[in-house]
Amino acid sequence: MHVLCTGAGGMIGRKLTAHLIKEGALGGRPISRLTLLDIEAPEIPAGTGDRVVTADVDLSMLGAAARAIADTPDVIFHLAAVVSGEAEIDFEKGYAANCGATRGLLEAIRQVGDYRPKLVFASSIAVYGAPFPEAIPDDFICAPLTSYGAQKAICELMLADYSRRGFLDGVGIRLPTIAVRPGKPNKAASSFFSSIIREPLAGQEAVLPVGESVRHWFASPRAAVAFLVHAAGLERERLGPHVNVTMPGFSCTVGEQIAALARIAGPKVAARVRREPDALVERIVSGWPQNFHARRAAELGFVAEKSFDEIVRAHIEDELGGSFVK
Amino acid sequence: MHVLCTGAGGMIGRKLTAHLIKEGALGGRPISRLTLLDIEAPEIPAGTGDRVVTADVDLSMLGAAARAIADTPDVIFHLAAVVSGEAEIDFEKGYAANCGATRGLLEAIRQVGDYRPKLVFASSIAVYGAPFPEAIPDDFICAPLTSYGAQKAICELMLADYSRRGFLDGVGIRLPTIAVRPGKPNKAASSFFSSIIREPLAGQEAVLPVGESVRHWFASPRAAVAFLVHAAGLERERLGPHVNVTMPGFSCTVGEQIAALARIAGPKVAARVRREPDALVERIVSGWPQNFHARRAAELGFVAEKSFDEIVRAHIEDELGGSFVK
Repeated sequence: MHVLCTGAGGMIGRKLTAHLIKEGALGGRPISRLTLLDIEAPEIPAGTGDRVVTADVDLSMLGAAARAIADTPDVIFHLAAVVSGEAEIDFEKGYAANCGATRGLLEAIRQVGDYRPKLVFASSIAVYGAPFPEAIPDDFICAPLTSYGAQKAICELMLADYSRRGFLDGVGIRLPTIAVRPGKPNKAASSFFSSIIREPLAGQEAVLPVGESVRHWFASPRAAVAFLVHAAGLERERLGPHVNVTMPGFSCTVGEQIAALARIAGPKVAARVRREPDALVERIVSGWPQNFHARRAAELGFVAEKSFDEIVRAHIEDELGGSFVK
Repeated sequence: MHVLCTGAGGMIGRKLTAHLIKEGALGGRPISRLTLLDIEAPEIPAGTGDRVVTADVDLSMLGAAARAIADTPDVIFHLAAVVSGEAEIDFEKGYAANCGATRGLLEAIRQVGDYRPKLVFASSIAVYGAPFPEAIPDDFICAPLTSYGAQKAICELMLADYSRRGFLDGVGIRLPTIAVRPGKPNKAASSFFSSIIREPLAGQEAVLPVGESVRHWFASPRAAVAFLVHAAGLERERLGPHVNVTMPGFSCTVGEQIAALARIAGPKVAARVRREPDALVERIVSGWPQNFHARRAAELGFVAEKSFDEIVRAHIEDELGGSFVK
């Protein structure tokens, strides 16, 4: 089978790519070809021969989507997006990259005719806006309070309608905040959720800009890849017309994150978290979802971590080769 | 003030126009100019002098929206849409007319700069898709099962985001099924909700294609005009960031509709309803919303009929000059 991945150069895209290459198959069918697209062509992983093709593509450009799917891939992972901070700063770029490119992709698929690929769309819990109930149920309104969230919600509606009309088999998965992200801290307001685990395990100090009672919804990068792969294998009939699903995750407070770190790596590592409250970050984060009842995802067989300890361990295993700076 | 109305030639557009001309003002401010747009230019009502301008405009055409708002109207009623049946039959036309035209209008407004009109958007309870709770609350997910519903829900998301970003002051009102519609029965699956009242009052037989236990959510054309006018006067601060609101209505069964007709017009009139079950119509209607808890609309001061008797009386007063065929 031929698999296409957009946004393949991003953090999740790279991990999905590595998984697909390692498995060599998706849903029990061998992958004969893997096409990796991003604004800058992703690197071709070593030793993959001619099975893997990469290209630099801006899907918001006219005709780019039609070219991207010209050889009718069987499964498309559509991960390409401008992140929330950038979509909020650059209004036009956000709509072009997050709505325009997705619309272009759906339209290109529709216009092929007699072609109905599986399309897995990476959505986000950013489709939800406050005020929230204590835990957000599957039938809660998507009324986002960021442009990024609005763009993801618009894509979800298009995906569901194109799927209902039979132009493709779409499934949209609303990803939790993915932690622990590998790499360096960045300017995203959510950066600290990862860095308070990642930096201490690397022997470095991390700054915590919010109170320990702040609660949020997490899954590991490993779980995110598993969501994408599981989504690609979901049968149309099982999914029904409501193709967008909130992924499972683990809800915990920042204090519980740090306690998990202390349990696994010891109090000396956990002591590398420095409290430095930042009113702006506090305010931004206060508008984010804290907890979900992701019942439908569980019924559909999606699985996430059941403790933050598991998420810390996944990071140590997947990113640190099993060890850390004591 | 200058008021612009798109879709002004439709049933609600004509009634809104008549109301605005009769009042000569909106929210206490005199209307100096009223621009009426539709695919075919609406008629200029008699005796309005040069205050009323009409034009034929297809807002889905490139540049049409920019020309439509070139003289920066203070209030825009955006009613133009392709109806649900047509949007389901003609996929491309539905997206062009219902999404493309609205996006074009929002973008044209944004690009003027230093211009922040009030924009009242006519949305619909078609944004909701089954399964439903017994009564749909304000925080229920918009997961439509028609292309029309998807298009309205996408417009709602854009309207909220453009409003949040300060490009305009939007308010989206989710209209109930409007009954009793004047005119003739049409091929819409919902046509019978009006015709079982309208035809008997005109001395004609009406066909009821569903069982009497079918429940639905109604408001009169008069109430719809009142919703639009009230929405135009809502203050930004009072509305907050969630600018799309389910309008109030009255939930009743088809049997209760007919009972109201009998109470007001007598059993002989009500006996003009002929039962002729149609499995297709039964199936379509079974996926429609039946009842709402429209609490937010009530808090914001929107008012609808409190019985179906009131809706029947509104039809007799507004369309039949107070009398009917006994």
